Amino acid sequence: MSAFTKLQQQFKRLSRIQHAAAICGWDQAAMMPEGGNNARGEALAELSVISHQLLTAPELDDWFEEAHEEITDALDIANLATMKRAWQHATLLPQDLVEATSIANSRCEHAWRQQRKNNDWQGYNTNLKEVVRLAREQAGYFAEHAGLNRYDALMDIYEPGMSSHKVDNLFGEIKTWLPGLIDEAEEIQKTRQVITPQGPFPTEQQRQLGLNIMGLLGFDFQHGRLDTSTHPFCGGVPEDVRITTRYDEQNFMSALLGVIHETGHARYEQNLPRTLAGLPVGQARSMGVHESQSLFFEMQLARSLPFTRLIAPRIAEAFQRQQDPAFSADNLYQLNTRVKRGFIRVDADEVTYPAHVILRYEIERELIEGGIDTEHIPDLWNEKMESLLGLSTAGKNDIGCMQDIHWAGGAFGYFPSYTLGAMYAAQLFNAAQQHLPGLEEKIGNGDLGGLFEWLNKAIWSKASTLSTDELMRQATGEALNSHYFKQHLQQRYLA
Amino acid sequence: MSAFTKLQQQFKRLSRIQHAAAICGWDQAAMMPEGGNNARGEALAELSVISHQLLTAPELDDWFEEAHEEITDALDIANLATMKRAWQHATLLPQDLVEATSIANSRCEHAWRQQRKNNDWQGYNTNLKEVVRLAREQAGYFAEHAGLNRYDALMDIYEPGMSSHKVDNLFGEIKTWLPGLIDEAEEIQKTRQVITPQGPFPTEQQRQLGLNIMGLLGFDFQHGRLDTSTHPFCGGVPEDVRITTRYDEQNFMSALLGVIHETGHARYEQNLPRTLAGLPVGQARSMGVHESQSLFFEMQLARSLPFTRLIAPRIAEAFQRQQDPAFSADNLYQLNTRVKRGFIRVDADEVTYPAHVILRYEIERELIEGGIDTEHIPDLWNEKMESLLGLSTAGKNDIGCMQDIHWAGGAFGYFPSYTLGAMYAAQLFNAAQQHLPGLEEKIGNGDLGGLFEWLNKAIWSKASTLSTDELMRQATGEALNSHYFKQHLQQRYLA
Repeated sequence: MSAFTKLQQQFKRLSRIQHAAAICGWDQAAMMPEGGNNARGEALAELSVISHQLLTAPELDDWFEEAHEEITDALDIANLATMKRAWQHATLLPQDLVEATSIANSRCEHAWRQQRKNNDWQGYNTNLKEVVRLAREQAGYFAEHAGLNRYDALMDIYEPGMSSHKVDNLFGEIKTWLPGLIDEAEEIQKTRQVITPQGPFPTEQQRQLGLNIMGLLGFDFQHGRLDTSTHPFCGGVPEDVRITTRYDEQNFMSALLGVIHETGHARYEQNLPRTLAGLPVGQARSMGVHESQSLFFEMQLARSLPFTRLIAPRIAEAFQRQQDPAFSADNLYQLNTRVKRGFIRVDADEVTYPAHVILRYEIERELIEGGIDTEHIPDLWNEKMESLLGLSTAGKNDIGCMQDIHWAGGAFGYFPSYTLGAMYAAQLFNAAQQHLPGLEEKIGNGDLGGLFEWLNKAIWSKASTLSTDELMRQATGEALNSHYFKQHLQQRYLA
Repeated sequence: MSAFTKLQQQFKRLSRIQHAAAICGWDQAAMMPEGGNNARGEALAELSVISHQLLTAPELDDWFEEAHEEITDALDIANLATMKRAWQHATLLPQDLVEATSIANSRCEHAWRQQRKNNDWQGYNTNLKEVVRLAREQAGYFAEHAGLNRYDALMDIYEPGMSSHKVDNLFGEIKTWLPGLIDEAEEIQKTRQVITPQGPFPTEQQRQLGLNIMGLLGFDFQHGRLDTSTHPFCGGVPEDVRITTRYDEQNFMSALLGVIHETGHARYEQNLPRTLAGLPVGQARSMGVHESQSLFFEMQLARSLPFTRLIAPRIAEAFQRQQDPAFSADNLYQLNTRVKRGFIRVDADEVTYPAHVILRYEIERELIEGGIDTEHIPDLWNEKMESLLGLSTAGKNDIGCMQDIHWAGGAFGYFPSYTLGAMYAAQLFNAAQQHLPGLEEKIGNGDLGGLFEWLNKAIWSKASTLSTDELMRQATGEALNSHYFKQHLQQRYLA
């Protein structure tokens, strides 16, 4: 058996362990009774240990060396490169650093849950300092190996090929027009009347509506399901994708848009090529590209006027509100495109959202590069919120720099993916419009097959066989360009 | 670290992998969409491989040797013995035999699902022959090691310490009075009027009733849940027990008694001592003892008149049938104690059930010992059904010897556990009555705490720290004695 084949078999074994971990993780969030948590935590940790052992088995050194000589095909080369990347991430760090990081991150994240509620910055900062120290140390190892600076080395985990230089350009450009666009949009919307639908909207009716719209969006129920969890997510495995939402009986739109968002993630997963199943090259390209699919579904498609017209009757029917003016397509559209600056990222609309991401990016980059320390965060946060959104978080760290789980859990370099995803999505939707004449009309008629076929060909079926730049070039004719995102916001919000 | 400690750590690792397998297995039965099946099968197989590797790691040889010298405490000795037993079961068989068996059993079981529907004995027999050949070979390895005959060596997997000699005595005794008791009971019941409750009984109402009765029976919802699956079972892990049922909208009693049965299994699991969690000595004693708990709940408790009186009002309320005479306690009691001989084991009442088990036991023992071959099964089955229940299965193998999954999947030596469980349950209930004066009245009043406390002390908390004989002796004053089962049936069915 060739070394290349042996590597593929090892990675398929790994993916089977990760299958078990994904299902147990989903179960923990969606099904497990509280009392099972300790045992589950131990079981998941054991699966991590086994995964790490498979990925760092000593024989892999030789296999990787030999495999390079064995292959010439472009797909094989991409396949080998993605395996090697995963292997290097697992082997570059000394074991005691991995363990220290795991302990520090867990401690910080666990304490943060209470500290955030108490607006206890001092307590949080004590733990966060150590998390940052270890993240810098980790980043140092990755950076040295890849010849990158530290922050770029961390961002590369989530967004391979992306650099802070590129992000600076993209985000810098956005910063030039975003505050003005927010002002204008709010001004325009001031005079518009929007009727808030009045609940209650029973959970079971909301769930049925969600399932209905998932069907419309092509979710494959033979390979996935919808459930409920406190924090919505898309989990499971490509063969069996588990999406979750949460229901608010006073506001059905939140769960519905959440379901649509996760359905975007799910269709990407469900349509990854089965021929590459279990191999890193068969996985989604990056966090940003993944987010581009959820935002394509949620922002580009679901909050558009044609799609709102398509589903408004289904929504009204689900709750028996066919005569209620709040359920008209125009009103629902106004409702789903309202711009309102606020403190909380996860509650932000698509116009103000990039401001939340940009400020986090700017702070975390400096944190990892060592330009600032954790004690500088609250003031910087306040300053940037003032400048981007005109809001002060002075003394309000609970709704400021303590609101997210990412840093508490040691995930630095992830935040840019959200806005990169929004930009990819806008650029992809624009390309789809070029490729599919009459797209808006088709969407209004519920004729979505062509759009999904295009996405499948352009993104889903490609998995990680191309670099992100090349993926975007083949799909849209150029690498990521923030112009399309700006154009999208202008057309939707300044019209 | 002592060898004994290292062994315990290794077995705890193993139990964490088995935790993941248990949850993924539950999910496969209760949650997974059809299309996830192949990937799930591969993931579960990988977890088996990992478990086997942990259990057969070469260093265990030395650890077991050294550990014997390190311990003197009785609990430690039992702990070591149960670990050693699991290790020997995993290491005794040559790898190629394990693989051949796994393939033959899967093939036979898979084909059986269709062959049974088609009453295709010839097709089934072709595969079963190979399954039996390999089971005999496996049994040979175990038998040689343990100094037992082949069948006893297989039965010992499920029922440690049990022997065909003991089972022959127990079942032989039952055979002397069972056919007569069935005749008498049917005769007595002939003249009784039983009203069958008329459906539909909506699934959600049935589920709520099941949850209600689970609560009454002390199921700990912080450490477990109730779901739906085609074949009801009790799965998960002691910290998080997953029971399932299936609902028939025309017959609520079937799901309700199923839930009560699985709750018996669940309470045993939920009350295994946490101090021994993850160790073989902390697991349930045997399949028969496990079944004794489910049958204690279902047969001894739930089908009794006092308990029926206790729950009849809850049942009537669940379906809003407070005025329906079918829902009177007396009618429900008649309904739940009806004796009716039939072909299908899983549909049998508690009086005819032992006949189904005894005939299977007699046939499978001869099969494994080599006294008969698979082609003799249909005639023997027919003969024994005629003699025990007066029913002919000639030409009806689909409802005869092809009805069960056990042999198709290579599980020989399991069947006795069902009736051993029924006998343990009767003996335990009798002992509980001796220990708890006024038990029937307490049950009627819903005062079940004392009974569960007694079961916990006698059985649940003991896990595998005692042999089954010793467990029964400490709980009831004597080892298993079929007298109590006979007495139970006589009191309930001939009164």
